[in-house]
Amino acid sequence: MCFVVDMAFSYFRTVRFADTDAAGVVYFANYLSMCHEAYEDSLAAGGIELQSFFQNAGVVVPIAKSEAEYLRPLRPGDRLRISVTPEALTENSYSVRFEIHRLNAVEKLAARVRTEHVATSPEKRQRVALPPPLAAWVNAG
Amino acid sequence: MCFVVDMAFSYFRTVRFADTDAAGVVYFANYLSMCHEAYEDSLAAGGIELQSFFQNAGVVVPIAKSEAEYLRPLRPGDRLRISVTPEALTENSYSVRFEIHRLNAVEKLAARVRTEHVATSPEKRQRVALPPPLAAWVNAG
Amino acid sequence: MCFVVDMAFSYFRTVRFADTDAAGVVYFANYLSMCHEAYEDSLAAGGIELQSFFQNAGVVVPIAKSEAEYLRPLRPGDRLRISVTPEALTENSYSVRFEIHRLNAVEKLAARVRTEHVATSPEKRQRVALPPPLAAWVNAG
Amino acid sequence: MCFVVDMAFSYFRTVRFADTDAAGVVYFANYLSMCHEAYEDSLAAGGIELQSFFQNAGVVVPIAKSEAEYLRPLRPGDRLRISVTPEALTENSYSVRFEIHRLNAVEKLAARVRTEHVATSPEKRQRVALPPPLAAWVNAG
Repeated sequence: MCFVVDMAFSYFRTVRFADTDAAGVVYFANYLSMCHEAYEDSLAAGGIELQSFFQNAGVVVPIAKSEAEYLRPLRPGDRLRISVTPEALTENSYSVRFEIHRLNAVEKLAARVRTEHVATSPEKRQRVALPPPLAAWVNAG
Repeated sequence: MCFVVDMAFSYFRTVRFADTDAAGVVYFANYLSMCHEAYEDSLAAGGIELQSFFQNAGVVVPIAKSEAEYLRPLRPGDRLRISVTPEALTENSYSVRFEIHRLNAVEKLAARVRTEHVATSPEKRQRVALPPPLAAWVNAG
Repeated sequence: MCFVVDMAFSYFRTVRFADTDAAGVVYFANYLSMCHEAYEDSLAAGGIELQSFFQNAGVVVPIAKSEAEYLRPLRPGDRLRISVTPEALTENSYSVRFEIHRLNAVEKLAARVRTEHVATSPEKRQRVALPPPLAAWVNAG
Repeated sequence: MCFVVDMAFSYFRTVRFADTDAAGVVYFANYLSMCHEAYEDSLAAGGIELQSFFQNAGVVVPIAKSEAEYLRPLRPGDRLRISVTPEALTENSYSVRFEIHRLNAVEKLAARVRTEHVATSPEKRQRVALPPPLAAWVNAG
């Protein structure tokens, strides 16, 4: 007997007027912003606060790539659940997969987003290893 | 003996990177967006969903004025409590007062925001009375 | 004989989908963002680049207050002219008045916005005099 | 003798404080917003105004996918040139490739973005052929 348990972190969010545009639905770039909020919350849940952590560590991990598939429109008031699944790529980099689920009467997948992050030293101007707390967060994902 | 109880609706919110600008703190216009989120949540708590409600009622209540006092900077990860206090102005209009409190070690008032809203019929192109559920929300504020 | 010449700086801007919300018109907080763009352009025209200038001068001039009157809705594609008029308040502070004009068949005033800025030393944690280039910009307004 | 002429539409834009976040550079999702501005301007240059066109045509062309490669950070005041190159995919869909160039002392490629758009009838809830003016814009790209 065997269980497969989805360990992904979940972030809950309501769609706001500010997220939408004149087409009546969430503006495409704001799907990415909402996923970044989920990423920030997931890091904080892992003991990493983006602001102070990166200031102290002397390392930044900017986003090198993003991809998004927009499957369903999202409207003001829609309740969302966004799952966050990090994955190690190299010793310097990781990806994060996000799924945005719309929690109306029936839960439906509304978008898939993926980002790639590369740890960089602004001083050395080169890639560096992930700081250990961040590596731990990635590997727990 | 006497209690004065603050009945204001409270909305909780974490500051996100997307809220900030290159000065490292929340961009001044985003204080207003965060208050509008609190307004949307307060209306929903009163049984009014902005989107469907206004479509059905044939009435819109655009913001006619806003005012803000920025008292303290807000940084990514700061926890906020935003209070929402509506007040009737005329039979067609109301104001909403917001206070943004930063919930770090000590709670501190970070901003005061005030908006004025006027009920309007897009078809008649004139001011109209507040729909009863909205009037009830204002008067319960 | 006499001329009254409007010396205000003018900034031109097209309304974008990203500026609007599900009500089909520019989101109220984005009127302020558009005025801040005009402010940035007006400073640059006066030889002041916000980013490098404030880093070098050791002074920041955060916005202490804002006020806005929303007179007309703005839709995607609308052409705007935003006038920028600074005014000295004290040796530490100034206000900026903005008027957003919609340039359709007939030019119409769509909003009035006013901000107040206070020069501050982050190190000294107190108000300081405006750096001379900024004082010159204010007084030329 | 032979010329290769880049026929891509170019959109010029200055980076604003509102585009950036507390890391001091443009927030990753705002690269996509800036490309959408360029797309709106390119359509308008082809005689298509997003708002009125899609209302009249009974067709919407939401974005189904986006991809971005972030090559260089962008700071407030940076001047940008964004090129817009549409390409037909099927009779119902097209892609748009964007390149964001930073126009400092030397022009450098700062990001590549690609979007996919699918013409849809909200009434029929199915894919439909591109309206002829939009097909003409795609084919001229």
